[in-house]
Amino acid sequence: MSHDHEMNELEDSGPTRRTFAVGTAATATAAAAGVLGAEPAAASPAGRVRGAPAAVPAQAPGVDPARNRAVARAVLVLDEDERPLTETYRGILRDGLPRPGTRGRNVLVVGAGPSGLLAAHLLKQAGHQVTVLEANGNRAGGRLKTFRIGGHEDAEQPFADPQQYAEAGAMRFPDSHPLVMDLIEQLDLTKRPFKLVAEDENGTRTNATWLYVNGVRIRRGDYERSPREVNRSFGVPEEYENTPASAILAGVLDPIRDRFSTKRPDGSRENKPLPEALDGWTSVIEEFGDYSMFRFLTEYAGLDVRTVDLVGTLENLTSRLPLAFLHSFTSSAVISPITQFYELEGGTAVLADALLERVRGEVVFDRRVTRIAYWRPDGAGQGGEPAEVAEDGPHVWLEAVSEGRDGTVVREQFTADLAIVTVPFSGLRQVQLLPIPSLPKRRALTELHYDAATKVLLEFSRRWWEFTEGEWEQELNAIRPGLADDYAAGDVPDDGSLLGAHPSVPDGYLTEAQRVHYAANRWLSPDQPPALHAYGGGSACDNTNRFTFNPSHPVPGSDGGVVLASYSWADDAVRWDAFDDDARYPHALRGLQEIYGQRIEVFYTGVGKTQSWLRDPYAYGEASVLLPGQHTELYPDIGTPEGPLHFAGDHASLKPAWLEGALESAVRAALEVHGRD
Amino acid sequence: MSHDHEMNELEDSGPTRRTFAVGTAATATAAAAGVLGAEPAAASPAGRVRGAPAAVPAQAPGVDPARNRAVARAVLVLDEDERPLTETYRGILRDGLPRPGTRGRNVLVVGAGPSGLLAAHLLKQAGHQVTVLEANGNRAGGRLKTFRIGGHEDAEQPFADPQQYAEAGAMRFPDSHPLVMDLIEQLDLTKRPFKLVAEDENGTRTNATWLYVNGVRIRRGDYERSPREVNRSFGVPEEYENTPASAILAGVLDPIRDRFSTKRPDGSRENKPLPEALDGWTSVIEEFGDYSMFRFLTEYAGLDVRTVDLVGTLENLTSRLPLAFLHSFTSSAVISPITQFYELEGGTAVLADALLERVRGEVVFDRRVTRIAYWRPDGAGQGGEPAEVAEDGPHVWLEAVSEGRDGTVVREQFTADLAIVTVPFSGLRQVQLLPIPSLPKRRALTELHYDAATKVLLEFSRRWWEFTEGEWEQELNAIRPGLADDYAAGDVPDDGSLLGAHPSVPDGYLTEAQRVHYAANRWLSPDQPPALHAYGGGSACDNTNRFTFNPSHPVPGSDGGVVLASYSWADDAVRWDAFDDDARYPHALRGLQEIYGQRIEVFYTGVGKTQSWLRDPYAYGEASVLLPGQHTELYPDIGTPEGPLHFAGDHASLKPAWLEGALESAVRAALEVHGRD
Repeated sequence: MSHDHEMNELEDSGPTRRTFAVGTAATATAAAAGVLGAEPAAASPAGRVRGAPAAVPAQAPGVDPARNRAVARAVLVLDEDERPLTETYRGILRDGLPRPGTRGRNVLVVGAGPSGLLAAHLLKQAGHQVTVLEANGNRAGGRLKTFRIGGHEDAEQPFADPQQYAEAGAMRFPDSHPLVMDLIEQLDLTKRPFKLVAEDENGTRTNATWLYVNGVRIRRGDYERSPREVNRSFGVPEEYENTPASAILAGVLDPIRDRFSTKRPDGSRENKPLPEALDGWTSVIEEFGDYSMFRFLTEYAGLDVRTVDLVGTLENLTSRLPLAFLHSFTSSAVISPITQFYELEGGTAVLADALLERVRGEVVFDRRVTRIAYWRPDGAGQGGEPAEVAEDGPHVWLEAVSEGRDGTVVREQFTADLAIVTVPFSGLRQVQLLPIPSLPKRRALTELHYDAATKVLLEFSRRWWEFTEGEWEQELNAIRPGLADDYAAGDVPDDGSLLGAHPSVPDGYLTEAQRVHYAANRWLSPDQPPALHAYGGGSACDNTNRFTFNPSHPVPGSDGGVVLASYSWADDAVRWDAFDDDARYPHALRGLQEIYGQRIEVFYTGVGKTQSWLRDPYAYGEASVLLPGQHTELYPDIGTPEGPLHFAGDHASLKPAWLEGALESAVRAALEVHGRD
Repeated sequence: MSHDHEMNELEDSGPTRRTFAVGTAATATAAAAGVLGAEPAAASPAGRVRGAPAAVPAQAPGVDPARNRAVARAVLVLDEDERPLTETYRGILRDGLPRPGTRGRNVLVVGAGPSGLLAAHLLKQAGHQVTVLEANGNRAGGRLKTFRIGGHEDAEQPFADPQQYAEAGAMRFPDSHPLVMDLIEQLDLTKRPFKLVAEDENGTRTNATWLYVNGVRIRRGDYERSPREVNRSFGVPEEYENTPASAILAGVLDPIRDRFSTKRPDGSRENKPLPEALDGWTSVIEEFGDYSMFRFLTEYAGLDVRTVDLVGTLENLTSRLPLAFLHSFTSSAVISPITQFYELEGGTAVLADALLERVRGEVVFDRRVTRIAYWRPDGAGQGGEPAEVAEDGPHVWLEAVSEGRDGTVVREQFTADLAIVTVPFSGLRQVQLLPIPSLPKRRALTELHYDAATKVLLEFSRRWWEFTEGEWEQELNAIRPGLADDYAAGDVPDDGSLLGAHPSVPDGYLTEAQRVHYAANRWLSPDQPPALHAYGGGSACDNTNRFTFNPSHPVPGSDGGVVLASYSWADDAVRWDAFDDDARYPHALRGLQEIYGQRIEVFYTGVGKTQSWLRDPYAYGEASVLLPGQHTELYPDIGTPEGPLHFAGDHASLKPAWLEGALESAVRAALEVHGRD
């Protein structure tokens, strides 16, 4: 076993990677005392131990017009001169970084998620030496993660059917995200529609999936036409009884959207020309930057509690009511029934495969960064840097540790001229930064809110959601004659013996202990809804499953499918996170039965997969979903460099949780590094 | 191995406990169709599957004067006629439930936390038959949890020193909580001061622990006298430069407190007489019921962002800024430097031991409740109840499953006349309730916010926080001559070889892999603060550790001690929750070193303990810490019965997270059950 601190030089010409006396107290003290002229460390009780950085002006949140406008520019992806950046970024994605610029910098990239991989590729392509450090043992891609067999990470078979795969993270890409669409084409990946809305077998949208709330079950399409029963079950006032939740929400959001965009005949929206769109966004940020969605809906829009319950439950806002209005407001522009979404053939991880392929030699896996020391004139002597720092020598000293997956634990040090840090701020908060960064950056590191998001996936041996009632009858009676009638009458055993009872379910996955747990948790009800008979789409309910998604396409060669049985955020997700992974599946199946009926149990293979992003040791959350006031207080300081450190990742964009935001930030950071003197 | 659904009758005369056809679909359908006259289950696409309960009036949140007043009554613990309840509750705690009342009811209590144990005891004492179901395998007490050896749960040795113990949950009880103080006396437990403020060896308060923020380290007492340097490091405006954070906060809260209380000369507060105090609280709830603490501090109090940063960092408000103003406001009355707190000799769990002892024969461990069916006239036929329900027969049918700790998984059913459910609503949300409860209860189950709280404890072989500088020198030089000077000069190896280097540290706990992790994470700085020399108290910092506590008293027979290295809430806690338990200790030690200096490493035994309450599979969170608006929207409906189901637990009080709230709710629920016709 080796716990080696000594490592060989990298064979390639990347950033120096060697044993290096990173900031031992001794050398740092020497630096402090003499070489760099800073005051020596104080040991007095009230001493300023490390120089307190310059304070930023104190004012009430949201009242700085310059910051409001900076946030609005970020929403519209404009540069400081208010010119659109997206076409420039697309050009870089296509043709590389611009010719003029430096060459041969040593750059460390922390994190092999999409932003890190793209930035590394662009810089490598432009002639820089790049090393990417990734904490995961063998997986790149960050929150692009597919439960699959094989792939670059050589993952083990996740489901009973070796053909099957399903998404743990990103699962859909809207066509309104140009960098993503370009990248998919550039990498020669095959995209196909992600069916947000259920279709029939001919590809016609039917919206036939369920809403199941307050004990009322209705198809989504029927609800849009006749919302009365559902709305009354929430106790909404008469004026809202006949308006679908989506229309109530649109009714209160549209006047705000009108400030910067106009509605097309199909219901989609087009930004007004500049600077009108920018002025409009600035006014929205100024007025609502400190609002939660709850406050907006109640105080500004004047909705009563029960209508907020209705809209929150059906439009997936309830769990995010206390979070920033601006977050849900900007997101609502992306997820709507008229948005065209795409998924990738083979799973989202094929994008990670392709991004990794271009920089594979530059990626070091299984290195969790624990300390980043960096040099800047005003931070000298505060710890971290060696005794002498040459103008043209390394300015970043980084320490990482392996997690010892193969039994050995290795601590290793890296140096470089510059670094791009893509770690979510929730995780970067646990990394020592020496010297301490500027106050605004520290506040962002401390306070930036990250949301929970949890997925629970269940595998079935048949795609029962596509069945007609006749197919249901046939399949159930294939288990034993009369079983279809018994389910219809609610006359079935309650001991779990029908779990996975269909002949198509392979042996060996459902244990006896599992059966008892499933039996104890499974839904008992005489209620049996009709066959769903839908392709793709998903249901919404008020049990803990909250949102479900059927696969948009069959996996070739498989009669089964993996259902996203529960997709939830914030407090809804935390309800799952308290459970151990294995304890989630019986609950998820029960919730699914409540929506679709008890009989689906016969196709359950006994195999589930789940992903809690908040509990993921390298993701530290689903994404930065900001709190009221954080857009103006924290956002403008997220992406600004600290000495030789640059910052990328979706949190450094105003499209958190979206790949597009990660790519935008990667191009921006690569440009910064490339263009530095 | 047994996965038995058949269980023997309990020997005692408690609630019937047997195999019972709980709500098979067949019987429920029969009931629905005939016996109880409800409409049969609908299978139509838009059918109302189970009767939607009567809607409550729709209105804007916080505008119902009756609800505002109900919340104010709960704050002051008044009954509906606005008479104080506390003395009545104290009488019941002392003398038992009142004589008139029923006898011989079969009562199920779900959860063996303090509220469940107390309610069970009171009801048993009054002649009822009680069974308590507890999900934990062998531990009662809920969030009263001590890492200790032995105890009723026969726990294994948690620390290197077998004498040592430390609190995972509740750790301090204020003398302003009368039920708790009475109970401690009644159970003949020994209480002693919990030192919130550090003392010297003679018991004089010195407030000598550290504040360490923005790179500035200062003793708390010095900060109170000279706050300028710290305040300037946050960039506060000039008017606040010389005011301690606690005084800034008091300055904005005092006018609100003046509405219902008056300040005594010592700074503590006394409620005004009724009804003035009630009117005052009602006005506070009316005005600020929808406010977050962030909104209060910025919009109402007019503080700038930097002053909010200061107050939030030092007064532990930052992570709870987005949560309800009312929560932090009511809590701030409990935790203040002038509050007298107590702890229990032997650890808080001795209280759980004593509560359990009185009802031990009634507690069934290792039973996680998965389904609660109950009968009420308006819910009949909605599933769960058997075909015929006798007026004087059981009205509650409950199903539970073991977690199979001994290899067997058992599913078991229980029946009773009534039940008291003490499960946190975050967990109860995952339990099937049949029929579905009323809409207000469902909203509370869905939305009630539970907060994260995480503790990381580290064991040291010596109580270095009590050392003088002379003692430090002696102990360090006992490791090797000159080491004290080397630490002072920052001239020590960085490879982790000095971890646990003191001869007092027992062998066998620090592995080589741990050393590498600690070395990679440990704080490197030439800065060495002077000896803390303090007994009890704790430090505050802006690194992820946030708040630390030293033990208030030595453990007899031990020279060492366990430091609460990090106690954090909300987003601060979530930063720890992403890590696996074992990954937390190197980070916690690093944070402690940043505050106290690198040299503390020599006493680290290599043993830590940690508790994430949000990740606890039976606690589902630290406590219900409400969101803006939830006090008026949800709170009044938490404790109301649903048919034969009654609700207790600290979430059913306005003292969430406090034992006092759990006891209040237990007495109230026991009274309800006892007094029912």
